[in-house]
Amino acid sequence: MTVTHDQLANAIRALAMDAVEAANSGHPGMPMGMADVATVLFTRYLRFDPKAPDWADRDRFVLSAGHGSMLIYALLNLTGHQRPTMDDIRRFRQLHSPCAGHPENFELPGVETTTGPLGQGLATAVGMAMAERHLNAVYGDRLVDHRTWVIAGDGCLMEGINHEAVGLAGHLGLGRLIVLWDDNRITIDGATDLSTSEDVAARYRASGWHVAACDGHDPADIARAIEDAMADPRPSLVACRTVIGKGAPSKQGTSATHGSPLGASEVAGAKAALGWTAAPFEIPADIAAAWAEAGMRGAAARADWEARLAESGEAAGFYARMAGQVGDDWLKPHVAGLLASPQKIATRKASEIALEAINAALPQTIGGSADLTGSNNTRTKALKPFTRDDYAGRYVYYGIREFGMAAAMNGMALHGGVIPYGGTFLVFSDYCRPAIRLSALQRTRVVYVMTHDSIGLGEDGPTHQPVEHLMSLRLIPGLDVYRPCDAVETAECWALALSRADRPALIALSRQNLPQLRSDGDENRCARGAYRLRAAAAPRRVVLIATGSEVEIAAAVAERLEAEGIGADVVSMPCWELFAEQPAEYRADILPADALKVSIEAGSTLGWQIHTGQDGLSIGIDSFGASAPAGDLFTHFGLTPDHIVPRVRAALSQ
Amino acid sequence: MTVTHDQLANAIRALAMDAVEAANSGHPGMPMGMADVATVLFTRYLRFDPKAPDWADRDRFVLSAGHGSMLIYALLNLTGHQRPTMDDIRRFRQLHSPCAGHPENFELPGVETTTGPLGQGLATAVGMAMAERHLNAVYGDRLVDHRTWVIAGDGCLMEGINHEAVGLAGHLGLGRLIVLWDDNRITIDGATDLSTSEDVAARYRASGWHVAACDGHDPADIARAIEDAMADPRPSLVACRTVIGKGAPSKQGTSATHGSPLGASEVAGAKAALGWTAAPFEIPADIAAAWAEAGMRGAAARADWEARLAESGEAAGFYARMAGQVGDDWLKPHVAGLLASPQKIATRKASEIALEAINAALPQTIGGSADLTGSNNTRTKALKPFTRDDYAGRYVYYGIREFGMAAAMNGMALHGGVIPYGGTFLVFSDYCRPAIRLSALQRTRVVYVMTHDSIGLGEDGPTHQPVEHLMSLRLIPGLDVYRPCDAVETAECWALALSRADRPALIALSRQNLPQLRSDGDENRCARGAYRLRAAAAPRRVVLIATGSEVEIAAAVAERLEAEGIGADVVSMPCWELFAEQPAEYRADILPADALKVSIEAGSTLGWQIHTGQDGLSIGIDSFGASAPAGDLFTHFGLTPDHIVPRVRAALSQ
Repeated sequence: MTVTHDQLANAIRALAMDAVEAANSGHPGMPMGMADVATVLFTRYLRFDPKAPDWADRDRFVLSAGHGSMLIYALLNLTGHQRPTMDDIRRFRQLHSPCAGHPENFELPGVETTTGPLGQGLATAVGMAMAERHLNAVYGDRLVDHRTWVIAGDGCLMEGINHEAVGLAGHLGLGRLIVLWDDNRITIDGATDLSTSEDVAARYRASGWHVAACDGHDPADIARAIEDAMADPRPSLVACRTVIGKGAPSKQGTSATHGSPLGASEVAGAKAALGWTAAPFEIPADIAAAWAEAGMRGAAARADWEARLAESGEAAGFYARMAGQVGDDWLKPHVAGLLASPQKIATRKASEIALEAINAALPQTIGGSADLTGSNNTRTKALKPFTRDDYAGRYVYYGIREFGMAAAMNGMALHGGVIPYGGTFLVFSDYCRPAIRLSALQRTRVVYVMTHDSIGLGEDGPTHQPVEHLMSLRLIPGLDVYRPCDAVETAECWALALSRADRPALIALSRQNLPQLRSDGDENRCARGAYRLRAAAAPRRVVLIATGSEVEIAAAVAERLEAEGIGADVVSMPCWELFAEQPAEYRADILPADALKVSIEAGSTLGWQIHTGQDGLSIGIDSFGASAPAGDLFTHFGLTPDHIVPRVRAALSQ
Repeated sequence: MTVTHDQLANAIRALAMDAVEAANSGHPGMPMGMADVATVLFTRYLRFDPKAPDWADRDRFVLSAGHGSMLIYALLNLTGHQRPTMDDIRRFRQLHSPCAGHPENFELPGVETTTGPLGQGLATAVGMAMAERHLNAVYGDRLVDHRTWVIAGDGCLMEGINHEAVGLAGHLGLGRLIVLWDDNRITIDGATDLSTSEDVAARYRASGWHVAACDGHDPADIARAIEDAMADPRPSLVACRTVIGKGAPSKQGTSATHGSPLGASEVAGAKAALGWTAAPFEIPADIAAAWAEAGMRGAAARADWEARLAESGEAAGFYARMAGQVGDDWLKPHVAGLLASPQKIATRKASEIALEAINAALPQTIGGSADLTGSNNTRTKALKPFTRDDYAGRYVYYGIREFGMAAAMNGMALHGGVIPYGGTFLVFSDYCRPAIRLSALQRTRVVYVMTHDSIGLGEDGPTHQPVEHLMSLRLIPGLDVYRPCDAVETAECWALALSRADRPALIALSRQNLPQLRSDGDENRCARGAYRLRAAAAPRRVVLIATGSEVEIAAAVAERLEAEGIGADVVSMPCWELFAEQPAEYRADILPADALKVSIEAGSTLGWQIHTGQDGLSIGIDSFGASAPAGDLFTHFGLTPDHIVPRVRAALSQ
């Protein structure tokens, strides 16, 4: 007796209900509603091999509606992935289970990206599709030729980032991106018409997408719509008309199935209605076998691909590139050049000069900016634009889409084979903050190039002047925040950002020119996070700690203090995270207990007390900025030697 | 000789060029490109009276493309507002000039909102239009009947928030909102087709908008399109086809005019081409007179309105409501009720109970949630939904639009007459962070109700668990962050949030149940920001400082320490900002120098050193959370008395 589509789909529904009941928390409605669509996709179209979930040319599948995590856990288990085991699923949402409340890429191979914060999965998938087209342009159809699939809900479509992602994908003509929209007309608060009247299909068409529709519970109609989408050269939205919680006798079609266990009697009723008689967490052998067979569909394609790769003679290079290792051979000659002819330049300019060397040395970088190319200095001379007509290009004009850019960069990094960097003003890190957080949580190597990093940008005023941003970014776990003080440090920070492959980096850069303070380049001193740039001449009583553009000020303060016989070290601290990783003895040597510690940074002082102590001085800005020439602002906010020296003197005499 | 339209518009162009040249920085392209549209709007349609820029029934005008600030400065000056004076304009972008780089509502009456961060002006205007319709429903056409106008650029339309704002406005049918789009096909990076292929008109229509178009340099065509927009019952987008930098002989139509001075020779060429012969910053008398006359158009309408208000008998109530004063008579009886029957409830539930009292006492509140009504507990029983069919409703179903909600709330607060509050999960404060920053910069009374405020939310896992959020929000200047520990503190924090009219508040609330720790209610103890909840019995050696759900843990730790003879105060610190405002003696009494200070908060420890010192202990979470039941997580992350007591003991013995 052959296993029917309904039986395959009901296996997903049963596991979703069982796991949510066992955890007594979770979201059964979405997996039950989309079980039919997912079954058609995974048994007939998705290109994957459970024996090799890291196969480079696999299709990427993104569950943007991440609360429906039981859908992907069920699919991975049923198709024969090593994890999650059924025991993992039994421990859904328990400590140390890989089956977390929302899918986490670092827990399970086969989970391509961490989803849950709405809208970002789809926007991340756009980046995956960009990386695929780029690598296709580099390596050809033989080696790179796969699709990116997304399951998204109404939340993903209503979020602002959807506009940015859809606009970018449409503009770039990413025809191998297919979004399956769970069109169930239900949100948490109730029917979608409580809060939206949008003609979604018309909006997607307005952005250059193809739109198909299907009955999301009719496998033949689903297949027809998917094939329609695959045949169209544009990115596709497939509106899958579904019933949330499909099968739950009294709750289906309502928000009651969204985010709570159905309860024992509703589950019993659902299983009766679905004809599902197996015990909880058990899959009848014939159904399990049919799912396992579907999971073996891709093995031959993978073998063929591996043969092609072996024949191509490019295997070593391809694997190395996908593995993401990078060297920093470019650094020493670059720094030697800087030391040979020191210049007073903005660190954003220094970043551009470093990028000239980096982009020449590392063909895997893909740069870009959210419409501030000339201000962020992110495009180097040799980079051609990445366009629908030339995916080999390595520079993306993201448009005025900071959040979309950041999410796309996450997708590129997760896809592998490319290292994305992108720019905006530091103050607009707020616009991409939710994606920066996901960079850190997902451990993706994304480099955020954030220029105009303080009141030093001058006249544009408080809406454009970051104040709290540096410290608030340092608070994000797993994010390296760099703020170099000159061209040498800028190059060193870039080398570190590229070398730390399992975490994102944010480099804060000045608009204004800064002198070159470093006169040595034998070692990457930024690698210690903080280091003594100038040692006290007179007996040391003060340690001045500064970052970025304020290191110049600290050096001037030290000079004045020394002239008064007060010994003062100058410590440059370009990266707090790296400093925290140093041995305690090193840290105690740099920030000795017996000296007055004074921090100088043109931003929030809250947080600096961890280095200065309560008895130290934290000099910075704890209000919004103002519109004026930069020099006037540094004076106005007391960030000049004239203001700082008396404060240090007073603190010493207390 | 009559003054022509071109002469009026060229006065704007000349002032924009002159001011940018004098400042040697700024954005001439937009004011020059939109001068014709703005001239038609301000001389014929905008309802305003320069003698009373705070007239409640004036039209609201929002320059969403805030970089074009010289447009509004020129308009305010030319139409006869007291400020800016021509001297103010001469000092464009200089310290203490009200003519900042981007328009600031707190500097100039007539600047309705602070713009510059792209996309937010338009989204803020949606909130203004909502407030207008609500007050119209309350007071009738006689007293409230005005429009909201927006000038927006491509950046405003490309940002994600535009999707949320447009979707909300279309759904709510805000027909008195008219957006004039500066359709110049140029962004900073170059032509718009570098980064977008969108059919903007089709997208707006898909969201329920009316769309008109005009030649943005033909005054008759502009007027026709505006009248078309005014006649349509839907919100309107008017695509004004313009040339950026119109008049600049060699640079017009290019991004070179966007953000830099044109230079002396280009300015000379432009003035010659425009036939403008006056000296810099001088307006010929006939043109000045014609502008001044246009500025007097609204005086009669204002006089009529004032007469109607006087006749209505509602003047006192109306003015009081617009002035925004609120009492807290509801607080004492409410707290008395809590003290009479203490309950163990989540603070989100305590917030709902407080809101029942608040919404009954204060008819000006308008609540809402970004699709988490049942989780944020923001809708009280008597609140009807605010819909296109019933603008008298006081509850907004914002949909899955956190950023759009926050910006709309800013607009409502800026409009006046209403006090908005809205909810989402604390972790998604990141999604609205750019608008929260603008709440603080603009000094608007917006109350953010942020629930699920720690790992205490449990199984949803790290994507939904805030860690760095509390501290990163405390970093925003001018924002009050509250984290109450029980139902009494929740009510007190609500009273404070509502009473501090010139700043936003964010209330962080637990998902999980918490015991009622307070047994007194005579005074609002949260008003001190931090206070001694329990005094040490044994000689005091430790001060435990905690917030929110961790105050319960601190109390348990204190009990254990006291049992060992170690005296320990328990300090609840629901609001850092208020504590910082207290006299030094009070702060020193609460956090005495001679005791070990230990902070306990289920979030980032960085920042707590300002209270604990380097020798103190900061107990919290400096990594991402995990998916598990809440109790397991508190154990896993060491936030239990079992983990904390030994750490305190060890610190004391050092």
